[in-house]
Amino acid sequence: MAAFGINQGRLLARLEQLGRIGADSRGGRTRLALTAEDKAGRDLIVTWLQEIGAQVHVDRIGNIFGVISDERDIEPLMIGSHIDTVVRAGALDGCYGVVAGIEVLQVLKEHGVRMQRPVAVAAFTNEEGVRFMPDLLGSRVVVKDVELETALAISATDGATVAQELQHIGYDGRSSPWEVLPGMFIELHIEQGPVLDSEGIAIGIVEAVQGHSWWRVRIEGVANHAGTTPMSMRRDAGAAAMTLATRIVEQARDRGVPNVATVGTIAFEPNAINVVPGSATFTVDLRDHRDQTLRAAEQWLHDGVRELQSAGFRSSAQLLSHHAPVSFDADLCALLDSEAATLGLTRRRMNSGASHDAQMMARLCPTAMIFVPSQGGISHNPREHTEPAALKAGAQLLLRAALRLAGPTGGAQ
Amino acid sequence: MAAFGINQGRLLARLEQLGRIGADSRGGRTRLALTAEDKAGRDLIVTWLQEIGAQVHVDRIGNIFGVISDERDIEPLMIGSHIDTVVRAGALDGCYGVVAGIEVLQVLKEHGVRMQRPVAVAAFTNEEGVRFMPDLLGSRVVVKDVELETALAISATDGATVAQELQHIGYDGRSSPWEVLPGMFIELHIEQGPVLDSEGIAIGIVEAVQGHSWWRVRIEGVANHAGTTPMSMRRDAGAAAMTLATRIVEQARDRGVPNVATVGTIAFEPNAINVVPGSATFTVDLRDHRDQTLRAAEQWLHDGVRELQSAGFRSSAQLLSHHAPVSFDADLCALLDSEAATLGLTRRRMNSGASHDAQMMARLCPTAMIFVPSQGGISHNPREHTEPAALKAGAQLLLRAALRLAGPTGGAQ
Repeated sequence: MAAFGINQGRLLARLEQLGRIGADSRGGRTRLALTAEDKAGRDLIVTWLQEIGAQVHVDRIGNIFGVISDERDIEPLMIGSHIDTVVRAGALDGCYGVVAGIEVLQVLKEHGVRMQRPVAVAAFTNEEGVRFMPDLLGSRVVVKDVELETALAISATDGATVAQELQHIGYDGRSSPWEVLPGMFIELHIEQGPVLDSEGIAIGIVEAVQGHSWWRVRIEGVANHAGTTPMSMRRDAGAAAMTLATRIVEQARDRGVPNVATVGTIAFEPNAINVVPGSATFTVDLRDHRDQTLRAAEQWLHDGVRELQSAGFRSSAQLLSHHAPVSFDADLCALLDSEAATLGLTRRRMNSGASHDAQMMARLCPTAMIFVPSQGGISHNPREHTEPAALKAGAQLLLRAALRLAGPTGGAQ
Repeated sequence: MAAFGINQGRLLARLEQLGRIGADSRGGRTRLALTAEDKAGRDLIVTWLQEIGAQVHVDRIGNIFGVISDERDIEPLMIGSHIDTVVRAGALDGCYGVVAGIEVLQVLKEHGVRMQRPVAVAAFTNEEGVRFMPDLLGSRVVVKDVELETALAISATDGATVAQELQHIGYDGRSSPWEVLPGMFIELHIEQGPVLDSEGIAIGIVEAVQGHSWWRVRIEGVANHAGTTPMSMRRDAGAAAMTLATRIVEQARDRGVPNVATVGTIAFEPNAINVVPGSATFTVDLRDHRDQTLRAAEQWLHDGVRELQSAGFRSSAQLLSHHAPVSFDADLCALLDSEAATLGLTRRRMNSGASHDAQMMARLCPTAMIFVPSQGGISHNPREHTEPAALKAGAQLLLRAALRLAGPTGGAQ
């Protein structure tokens, strides 16, 4: 197994080539799902898969699968991610996982490795959720989180439906989304956070995807003259909002309940320098990989709202979005850990703060993720960057895992 | 002296008549300075003053003075306020003081009281500062806080200058603003705050006008992904802003430093639910009647900003506006107190949280203010209301004070 490895030059060249599609003059690229740019990216992926001799399927939601297979009666090991982007994206988010998967297939092919289990690379439709809601659309359809017909009828912000746009770009495939169901799934991705970079660690073995719980809190007090209303006679909705919001952030920071809490938006009314705020609204983003901890944090939020009600404020918390945490497969994580050790790569167990297709696929089969560092934790930004050697290391671990899970000695695992 | 008093019906009828000028269908009225509506209000004031036999002067900044006088070599007692309004105002703010002053002149005239000191009623130009900045413009010119020529050149939001608009409405008077300088000044006004109303007290003897200090605080941290950035690696400008803002409000509420503190506006950037705020801006309105306390509160604000700088945030506090506190004349306050007692009126000493022409006039001569209750503390609003009996009580106290300060027995004070 040590005799062959990832071709770093080819991996980087393909990332660069894919990254030029939809590129602007300021270092970013925009390849929103099911646009002409997405079509050009898809065409490139399909071409590469065909060139290395993979069988290519496109399913009815536009997911692209490329499979190499000697054995046909066993469920494949699937390596997957996405190639759609946000607006002014970097070149790595999603693309790295797909391109590295293609590189793994090519290395296996080049070396004539006889696989005991098929290996498939997947590029899922509309992971980012920028043009069509919800995100993770392609993988949601595969695991039946969203019905196929429902997904096809979703409208973009510009009015076109998924079905229309799939047809328009020629990716309204004929395969059933359930034709190539994997027996195990691995997603390789940049971290999109600062942990590995700041700790100088090469590999993150992702044990779970954090769940999230999003709320809008509204507090109504009484607007009053800022000069003539004594402090004791105020019902200051702004001060009440800031006190509760600060407490929520501090509980995460000081006690870790939940892992992370963010108050990202706030608004006062009437929002005048010399008027005591009559009402205030803020949002809360709570995330944790433990369902129980997420619920404890939600409970604190509700307790805070009730305290304000007792203090005479009309206040409420409205749930905007909720995803339960997802745990990955312990055996797969252990295997990735031991293979990383064999490769001499520094590594740590961690959680993913962002959403990924892997969290959907975990409903179907044993699933895990591999992270590589994001410089400065920056993502969804043209400045997104990972060092070439780090990109190679992640792909190398993916190749090792594929050999262990699907190759001559490991396919029966 | 007990033989005559305020004519409540006439006082209320004049307030109602003045209040109809600029009225809308929803109970409010809008009489911005130097508009056609302001002219109509001014004409009414001048008519009333002429009807009761007062000499009327209009000065070059449009201030209206009506004087009754037997002695001419002694500086008058001046009773003054304003009749310009904010948008959708009540009928009492300012108008009450002017109309009550006219009522006092009329009662003195009707009863043929031989005054040892002239009594003047003043209606100052552009007190509200809605159409022309700064506020208190007429009284500022009188005390030379603003030069006359500077004041005349000020442009309205609609482009016209004070000089043009004075000429347009025919109130570009010929008198010098310094022709009728008072020997003492009293302003009668509704409280515009909730203290007297909530305590059930008839009269506020105003000892001082709070100074104010207005700031814009800006904090820059680092915008980050709300899911992937651990709490320990964040520089959350929103949380930092809310912590500092909350501390400022709490210091006023819990320690009275300063009397009142308000954070009336706040904004985060990028203001997205799932992004840690990269920057935050909020305003601070600090008010106190003690200069030293106001400065202590400012110092705490600066200390907080410096702490944030030490913690790695770029942060700054920009001064937007500053008025030093103004103390009124202790002897005049004592006289008002004792006269209120004689009238059997409940009373308390207090400060004014809002600005008034009296704070300018205090630079010239012994000055004081009388407050009557504002129902619910509501002002600058069509729902502004004071009970008729309470309006009469305030005017009655003003009459008693005029008799003591300028009448047959008190003019030599």
